[in-house]
Amino acid sequence: MKRYLIAPGPVAVDPHVMAVMSQPVMHHRSPQFSKILSQVRKDLKYLYQTNNDCLIFASSGTGGMEACVSNLLSPGDKAICIVGGKFGERWAEMCDAFGVEHVDINVEWGHAVDPAQVADALDEHPDAKAVFVQAHETSTGAMHPVEELGKIVGQRDGTVLVVDAISALGVYDMKVDEWGLDVVVTGSQKSLSLPPGLAVVSVSDKAWKFAEKAKNSHYYFNFLKERKAMAKDTTAYTSAVSLIIGLAEVLKQIRERGLENLFAHHRLLSGGTKAAVEAMGLEQFSKAPSDALTIIKAPEGINGQDIVKILREDYGITIAGGQAHLKGKVFRIAHYGYLSQWDMIIVIAAIERALNELGFKVELGSGVAAAQRYFAEHKI
Amino acid sequence: MKRYLIAPGPVAVDPHVMAVMSQPVMHHRSPQFSKILSQVRKDLKYLYQTNNDCLIFASSGTGGMEACVSNLLSPGDKAICIVGGKFGERWAEMCDAFGVEHVDINVEWGHAVDPAQVADALDEHPDAKAVFVQAHETSTGAMHPVEELGKIVGQRDGTVLVVDAISALGVYDMKVDEWGLDVVVTGSQKSLSLPPGLAVVSVSDKAWKFAEKAKNSHYYFNFLKERKAMAKDTTAYTSAVSLIIGLAEVLKQIRERGLENLFAHHRLLSGGTKAAVEAMGLEQFSKAPSDALTIIKAPEGINGQDIVKILREDYGITIAGGQAHLKGKVFRIAHYGYLSQWDMIIVIAAIERALNELGFKVELGSGVAAAQRYFAEHKI
Repeated sequence: MKRYLIAPGPVAVDPHVMAVMSQPVMHHRSPQFSKILSQVRKDLKYLYQTNNDCLIFASSGTGGMEACVSNLLSPGDKAICIVGGKFGERWAEMCDAFGVEHVDINVEWGHAVDPAQVADALDEHPDAKAVFVQAHETSTGAMHPVEELGKIVGQRDGTVLVVDAISALGVYDMKVDEWGLDVVVTGSQKSLSLPPGLAVVSVSDKAWKFAEKAKNSHYYFNFLKERKAMAKDTTAYTSAVSLIIGLAEVLKQIRERGLENLFAHHRLLSGGTKAAVEAMGLEQFSKAPSDALTIIKAPEGINGQDIVKILREDYGITIAGGQAHLKGKVFRIAHYGYLSQWDMIIVIAAIERALNELGFKVELGSGVAAAQRYFAEHKI
Repeated sequence: MKRYLIAPGPVAVDPHVMAVMSQPVMHHRSPQFSKILSQVRKDLKYLYQTNNDCLIFASSGTGGMEACVSNLLSPGDKAICIVGGKFGERWAEMCDAFGVEHVDINVEWGHAVDPAQVADALDEHPDAKAVFVQAHETSTGAMHPVEELGKIVGQRDGTVLVVDAISALGVYDMKVDEWGLDVVVTGSQKSLSLPPGLAVVSVSDKAWKFAEKAKNSHYYFNFLKERKAMAKDTTAYTSAVSLIIGLAEVLKQIRERGLENLFAHHRLLSGGTKAAVEAMGLEQFSKAPSDALTIIKAPEGINGQDIVKILREDYGITIAGGQAHLKGKVFRIAHYGYLSQWDMIIVIAAIERALNELGFKVELGSGVAAAQRYFAEHKI
């Protein structure tokens, strides 16, 4: 069966990029590879809209998140975690794992945090050394207002803002320097449209001071060692060379295309899909939706997992179900990855069919028609 | 731009098959390769539904056609060519090139030949040594009735039936032995879903007698040399080893899937597309349509080439326009190749959009809705 991957990650990869990654493996300490790595680090700054250092780890995005906790804070330090989904919970779990005391701001899943709550928490806990947040909560589709948080945290010399932007960076506009986002994590398997295996972490001058002072248990994820290695155009431990060669190709393409066009592409796919959701009589889950994902509530009486299963097993299309207590309640469609408007047409058509099979009557073609109208009106 | 290839050939290839073909190049005279070639020849008989020898040439399908003319007939011999499209014309041109006298049965483009006309022509020209025909005329989408022609030619010891089945074999049921199809040509870049570069020709015992007697100019395309080479599990000249390794994989998959399921798949894609054509207020060109292609007349006042151009340049979707005097009048969609029902949804959606852009009003989503209903009702 021909297969289509339209899930929040891993994502479909351009066969051309796959071919580039298939070239003979290079040695990670060779001058040939150092040259590539040096260009990648320059191009990452373009993607990040930053002059900060961009560290590259051979790990999943979670490894990049852990690196932030274990490099910026010491045991007994205090942090504020914004917990509005599975990945917000992960920040709190990591604080526990590294002996960091954490004050959680619990946000109803699907909602964005109110920046005033964060300001209040910082007033109440002026000793909090970090605020941990998601730019976009992959489990709920909600965008937290990181621009506002940047202003709030930026006024406090003793606190850094650490942003998990794994499913946000490159999807929509995020001005890392202008907004004062001290530390920003991303992964290869989301908007970079690569296989999983790379995490990138940008570190501001302010954040480096925290890293220079912090004492915590870490060896592999070591900001200071990576900074030293960076000065020699290498990485502290073995680079994931093939993935980085893929990253070089993807970043070159992004530069050629321009960030604005990249964001407009995601906006188009997201807009068409969201128009289809409404036309099919369905409802979005997120109250602060992004252009990264569309998360749809399963209609009353229908298990969202059944929709996911029919798409995967009968139609060859992989989307994602809900996580944790949202399991069965929602299903999630990605707009990043190697996807086009036509992939959105496919997934909408498949959802129309699956819903009918499960007894929820949707007029076949009605969702697609709404997406078609949106795409025709918003040609880019 | 993400690209989709939904043209009558070359066709999209399964990335898994591409990966198989990317293995290190084998030597064409090695025992390792001979074993593969031997299995391929067995599996080709399954695809062809034949016990006849299946010769493999490193050439496009046209090379396979030429091999038939230059190996079965001598200069001054007479043949009957059924000319109902660009590929029927090609048989006649090849007869000219090899000094074969030809009686053409001209058929209106888009129509099937009337078998009675062929019987009459053979009565009038009992010395005709071959009848050349297309199973499916790729330029017009019409199927000629090769089963009936097999009966007619089968009664005549002095005549062989030579079928260009390049866009037919593997698409729909064609019983080579049961129907008495003496020589049947196919190519790798159609229903076999491989890159172009291989032609296969099946040769019946009756046809071998013609090949043993004929004298014509040929060197590379040599039936007798290939038969000798076949006995040693090799080819007369250098085999296109990587393509044959791909062919081995494709034929293995076809065996596992079963011919009936392969045909049902094409029937589904064709049926859904043809339902959409009607729903969009368009008309099929062919009067004897196949499950290989859907050929659509460009609406009055619209140049079919503009539809093809918008799909290719604005939407990244390659279909085909009309050939020869049909240029601008029709556009052609393939149902074979590495395609799914979702690719049909894509191409229909894109046609809806292109027609509206060109001023022919089609309700967006209406074609897709018809295809969706067809697919839902004909689940396989």
